Amino acid sequence: MTVYLNGSFLPVAEAKVSVLDRGFIFGDGIYEVIPVYGGRIFRLPHHLERLDLSLEGIHLANPMTHGKWQTVLEELVERNGSSDQSLYLQITRGVAIREHDFPHDAEPTVFAMSTPVAPRTADIAAGINAVTVEDIRWKWCHIKAIALLPNILMHRQAVEQGADEAIMLRDHFVTEGAASNVFIVNNGVVLTPPKSNLLLPGITRDLVVELCHANAIPCKDEAISEQQLRSADEIWITSSTREIVPVVRLDGAPVGNGQPGSLWHRLHHLYQDYKQAFRKGRAD
Amino acid sequence: MTVYLNGSFLPVAEAKVSVLDRGFIFGDGIYEVIPVYGGRIFRLPHHLERLDLSLEGIHLANPMTHGKWQTVLEELVERNGSSDQSLYLQITRGVAIREHDFPHDAEPTVFAMSTPVAPRTADIAAGINAVTVEDIRWKWCHIKAIALLPNILMHRQAVEQGADEAIMLRDHFVTEGAASNVFIVNNGVVLTPPKSNLLLPGITRDLVVELCHANAIPCKDEAISEQQLRSADEIWITSSTREIVPVVRLDGAPVGNGQPGSLWHRLHHLYQDYKQAFRKGRAD
Repeated sequence: MTVYLNGSFLPVAEAKVSVLDRGFIFGDGIYEVIPVYGGRIFRLPHHLERLDLSLEGIHLANPMTHGKWQTVLEELVERNGSSDQSLYLQITRGVAIREHDFPHDAEPTVFAMSTPVAPRTADIAAGINAVTVEDIRWKWCHIKAIALLPNILMHRQAVEQGADEAIMLRDHFVTEGAASNVFIVNNGVVLTPPKSNLLLPGITRDLVVELCHANAIPCKDEAISEQQLRSADEIWITSSTREIVPVVRLDGAPVGNGQPGSLWHRLHHLYQDYKQAFRKGRAD
Repeated sequence: MTVYLNGSFLPVAEAKVSVLDRGFIFGDGIYEVIPVYGGRIFRLPHHLERLDLSLEGIHLANPMTHGKWQTVLEELVERNGSSDQSLYLQITRGVAIREHDFPHDAEPTVFAMSTPVAPRTADIAAGINAVTVEDIRWKWCHIKAIALLPNILMHRQAVEQGADEAIMLRDHFVTEGAASNVFIVNNGVVLTPPKSNLLLPGITRDLVVELCHANAIPCKDEAISEQQLRSADEIWITSSTREIVPVVRLDGAPVGNGQPGSLWHRLHHLYQDYKQAFRKGRAD
């Protein structure tokens, strides 16, 4: 795998950073994950816009223009060859003596990699198991920070219970999954928690909302209580890498009839159609 | 500066980790900071015990025995020469393909460094300014995790207001400083918040409590409300690197009479005496 690090393309085995990099020492950085379909980077402007918001959230200037990002990422995708990839990029506050204070003269560290992704529609169609966990994360989850230890430990709680995802509850309301946003369907209406400092503004989340609106499917940004989650007809999680995944069991109990629901089928197909159009250059 | 990385001692400029290290990618690791006085490592057993608790908190086995840690850290201190140092050590979950799931076969990354520390009693005696900030951190602050971005951003809020430390309030109660524990004095009684998942069990904090008890100074583990903080006769912050520091202004208003208080003077001297005894091999 060829990766990008601070201006160079190089084999991942040679890509190393100083032990004093604030990414390594403090988790002081932000990231993005962007799908690549048919060699094209999906919704890059949306991701770069969110990147800017994350950088602003940690008071770090973007070390490259959007145009330069596009050039670098497109070259990275090309060098890694395959049609469908998952592109990852990370910016940290750079290398400095270990002190909480922002360093005065550090250059941000810029890292990007892209890994091939196999289509896994079959997996998705079976649905997944999720468990609920208490949301123990910080209060600025709108920043896509690399300091993901809390998410990792919550995801681990799901794995330990034989589940694939943890759905987080803060004060008995749904925030998001350990690595996804959450949707439910209640009496034919699609609901997802409104954007706030307590959850990441997902690019896939936004696309799902867009697809609902464009196809006259009732969809609302609305707080989801634990009670609503547990009695939902359908639950989905969304993320750039996993797209839209139906949750068929929650804490061991079937969601709806225990099968992926009809609105999930509909959105899944709309999403696949959108992807196909994108592959052919007919969508952003 | 000579550092330790995965079994080797090497110059810091050569100490590099893979971009896939989970410390760099996820903030998935823990750390300790340990003072060295007169070439002796201060309260090492306490720090190694806390290290084990942090590792347990993130489900990672300690890659070295306490005996091995002692050998490595003592060699590091010796190689770095000076009498007083600040020793830093960090363990991450190692190098693996980027996935939230714990890797099956990664070796933890072990890093340690030690930097000379000049005595700065004069600075301390002047006292510092602190501001209050909302505690935005996660709920497992008892784990000394490297994912410190929230602390860094809160410390930044203090710096932007011309202060030296941020004192964090969660639901109107004091938790800790951005990089310290907090004590107040109220009518001659020393108070510090009880240990919980919301704050780090500081080694210096514990020593201050010990010194109070050993010297018949009334001292209690007790929740401190915002109101109590604002009307305190004295406020101190404690940490391994800064020892006991009096806060003389809080959010711009003087604390007590705006000078370091008498109980701070007393504890400061008791702490310095303890350190001197330690330097001479007469204390742990």
